[in-house]
Amino acid sequence: MTSTATLDLTGRMLIAGTPVRGTGKEIRGIDPHTGNAIEPAYPYGDRSHVDEACAAAVEAFPAYRSAPIETRARFLEAIATNLESIADALVDRAHSETGLPRPRLTGEVGRTAGQLRLFASVLREGSWNQARIDPAQPDRSPLPRPDIRQRSVPLGPVAVFGASNFPLAFSVAGGDTASALAAGCPVVVKAHDAHPGTSELVGRAIADAVAASGLPAGTFSLLYGFGPELGTALVTDPRIKAVGFTGSRAGGMALVAAAAARPEPIPVYAEMSAVNPVFLLGGALADRGAELGRAFVGSLTLGSGQFCTNPGLVVAIDGPGLDTFVAAAGEAVAASAPTVMLTPGIADNFRNGVDALEDEAMLIARGSEIDAPAAGCRAALFATDAPTFLASEALQAEVFGAAGVLVRCADAAEMLRLAQSLEGQLTATIHAEESDHGQAGELLDVLELKAGRILFNGWPTGVEVGHAMVHGGPFPATSDSRTTSVGARSIERFLRPVCYQDAPKSLLPSAIADGNPDGLWRRIDGQLTKD
Amino acid sequence: MTSTATLDLTGRMLIAGTPVRGTGKEIRGIDPHTGNAIEPAYPYGDRSHVDEACAAAVEAFPAYRSAPIETRARFLEAIATNLESIADALVDRAHSETGLPRPRLTGEVGRTAGQLRLFASVLREGSWNQARIDPAQPDRSPLPRPDIRQRSVPLGPVAVFGASNFPLAFSVAGGDTASALAAGCPVVVKAHDAHPGTSELVGRAIADAVAASGLPAGTFSLLYGFGPELGTALVTDPRIKAVGFTGSRAGGMALVAAAAARPEPIPVYAEMSAVNPVFLLGGALADRGAELGRAFVGSLTLGSGQFCTNPGLVVAIDGPGLDTFVAAAGEAVAASAPTVMLTPGIADNFRNGVDALEDEAMLIARGSEIDAPAAGCRAALFATDAPTFLASEALQAEVFGAAGVLVRCADAAEMLRLAQSLEGQLTATIHAEESDHGQAGELLDVLELKAGRILFNGWPTGVEVGHAMVHGGPFPATSDSRTTSVGARSIERFLRPVCYQDAPKSLLPSAIADGNPDGLWRRIDGQLTKD
Repeated sequence: MTSTATLDLTGRMLIAGTPVRGTGKEIRGIDPHTGNAIEPAYPYGDRSHVDEACAAAVEAFPAYRSAPIETRARFLEAIATNLESIADALVDRAHSETGLPRPRLTGEVGRTAGQLRLFASVLREGSWNQARIDPAQPDRSPLPRPDIRQRSVPLGPVAVFGASNFPLAFSVAGGDTASALAAGCPVVVKAHDAHPGTSELVGRAIADAVAASGLPAGTFSLLYGFGPELGTALVTDPRIKAVGFTGSRAGGMALVAAAAARPEPIPVYAEMSAVNPVFLLGGALADRGAELGRAFVGSLTLGSGQFCTNPGLVVAIDGPGLDTFVAAAGEAVAASAPTVMLTPGIADNFRNGVDALEDEAMLIARGSEIDAPAAGCRAALFATDAPTFLASEALQAEVFGAAGVLVRCADAAEMLRLAQSLEGQLTATIHAEESDHGQAGELLDVLELKAGRILFNGWPTGVEVGHAMVHGGPFPATSDSRTTSVGARSIERFLRPVCYQDAPKSLLPSAIADGNPDGLWRRIDGQLTKD
Repeated sequence: MTSTATLDLTGRMLIAGTPVRGTGKEIRGIDPHTGNAIEPAYPYGDRSHVDEACAAAVEAFPAYRSAPIETRARFLEAIATNLESIADALVDRAHSETGLPRPRLTGEVGRTAGQLRLFASVLREGSWNQARIDPAQPDRSPLPRPDIRQRSVPLGPVAVFGASNFPLAFSVAGGDTASALAAGCPVVVKAHDAHPGTSELVGRAIADAVAASGLPAGTFSLLYGFGPELGTALVTDPRIKAVGFTGSRAGGMALVAAAAARPEPIPVYAEMSAVNPVFLLGGALADRGAELGRAFVGSLTLGSGQFCTNPGLVVAIDGPGLDTFVAAAGEAVAASAPTVMLTPGIADNFRNGVDALEDEAMLIARGSEIDAPAAGCRAALFATDAPTFLASEALQAEVFGAAGVLVRCADAAEMLRLAQSLEGQLTATIHAEESDHGQAGELLDVLELKAGRILFNGWPTGVEVGHAMVHGGPFPATSDSRTTSVGARSIERFLRPVCYQDAPKSLLPSAIADGNPDGLWRRIDGQLTKD
């Protein structure tokens, strides 16, 4: 398979495979190192483009959802291949538009392609069908039992809003798009303004794969536009049946509110906000306080702190072990070079956020000031005590970027109370030695009701794409804690169950047909079997 | 196991096992045959009672969710046993309060107990844990892969709103309560005003089982109150993490709106409204038009038409086969005796609904008028053509009760267009012979996007409680089409996934511990296994 993508950027949207020039305000990518605009211009689309994309999606839906599973799996693999074949151009453009380092972006191309291939394998394995058969019991008394069979069907066209901080893995062909396409749902993406050129390249790689796979063109569209206008129009279009979003709490809650105001409510999967608390227990601090301090700052400053899972909060019991940690962390922060953030706006927000922390907590250290670029970021670490933290909204709020707050607790009970007071989180981390396990167990009982992922003796900034990953968590980490937006189970967000009662054999979908022609794991009378 | 329930009714709520007298307006059960009130009075609770019940639920949650699975399973079985041991009293009281025939209520006791036992077996089988393990790959390049394990945890306290039409199976100990308790969630029920005494009996059977099982008293509470006040207070209480509801579209949407206005959005599982279309294809009509007509009226009038799955809409192509059907159905309706509805209010709504249908469609037949009881109901069948139906909101709306609309279509294309125009449904039914299968296949493609359950050559009024059942469907049939409110999978509504990264073995929950101590089906690196 070779890519048919060409690399000259056109500044156009892609509606059902056709390049369409927007009619509104022109935006351009901005190089965050220099603040300079990058050609070409991307004029915003309007409601008429939302209408066209949704009409094409709903028209494509019956054929797309009915295509053989192998066709759908190969289509996902074709997108992966197309992305890899333009990896250099993608990395170049994404680097210019986001300032993210090239090695990180090269890794992100691989992750994005790997994610698409994971869903191809999930499709082939087939458990997403949730195939269940309760066979007829014609002789049951007082009434015979009918034959009832269940499988999953896709919800319908899905709107996806890309994130700024992962211009590939959480954007146009990111996890939301990959899992929705895997589920059999056409996708309409609203590109993020922070990387329009990267979005066009990726959009074309998808549209090319749609065409090469013989699928209906409306299976995929890519729009540019003003969020409160075009984004809202997309979420409130009656043809859209679910929404995937990664971004800020304000942005996510605006989409949740827009969706809730529809005559027909639909699921909104918004992955939003977290401070990702890290708990340092006494044994771990005593054993390796300095090492933990340096490693923490490595995670805090990774990618200029622009991770949903950035560890913005450290909680520990006061004492000499913690002093060692603080000294090492402070040194590491002070030694950290200034880095560039994704956009000047994000850098401004970061500076304002750090100012707000400075008003309410004690500064431990800041990164150096020399050679700060246009959208520059200097890491910052603050300390406070538990009562001050619990009383302060500012200290509890997420500051997107490399800013951390350390809370010194008086004792284990205060640490546990602080854990209990936390909002929902994407991750929570415990550093513990064997001697800490009693306390770690108590914390775990609290944290598993607060977070989607709980780590031990690691750092939350890496998110594996696998079968067991949960990238989710209680509100406000996400708007729907029952799901994950990363990993195999994210496909479930776009499926619903249907059951068939006494259906003629010739009309039964193959997933629930007699003789198990698809070779699936199925639940027969409640028991899993491949028979 | 024997029940400790006593049968003298007290008119009190049950808050964490303690009888509490309400402070507000007094309601009483009403015998729909006579219109007479039945003692005792049930004074409404207020916000302070919601607060007490939620405080008790949140206090009970850690111990309840951590109780051994076998304890939870036996608790559900103890509720079932307690209900069966007071079956006679339950049937007597429910018959007085609802007018439903005793044999039907006897069956409903069995169904309610069976449902609880189904969840006990689901708990023991254990797949609800969704146990997944992605083992560590310490030698992976460029970075080692951590050990990641996933399981499910309960959401937290759940509010349940009982339905009027199934005073046992969809009420205090109905499917929502059973599945939420199975998931490990404490439950606060708001009793339905239409059967307060039945609710008290059932509530005490549950509270007795809580106590006998050594579980925290706050695991279950039962409140009486005014929906817009106490119900809204319950749904908006920050300690409530999910809502189960069965009832009218207006009632369900009010809860959805209340939940959407919370600072923290929560899932609302409202099962609301459906007309449950029945499509009669040509071969089936030619073969057995008269038989179908009589059987249809049997389903239409069952339980005075007071089923969520009542078939309120029949769609067929005009012709002699349909004429035969109509003649037989009309005769059956005309011959049907008047029956009693659940409450005088429901009977009033039914009469108004029938009047609205009469304004826009042609009357085929009505049930007889003799000896009509206080909350009486006379079945009604109307006919219209497709253009009239499609233009009329009244004809498309659900009339709760034994009222049906037959739509005569000019041809197959018109029938398909009508199917495409339908709102979401709990069920859709196709009557088809082999010669109809081409057309049935086309209809099926449309209907599986419209309904939760699709039946062939049957009637939708029976809902099996099993592993493959889907009692759900796209809006407005429910507020969350991704779920079912009947059957094994309804437990999933109250669970969320959590993953554990590099957790110490001594802290891992047994569902995802090494060596599979619980003997579960688990997904290891994506493959299902019991190893």
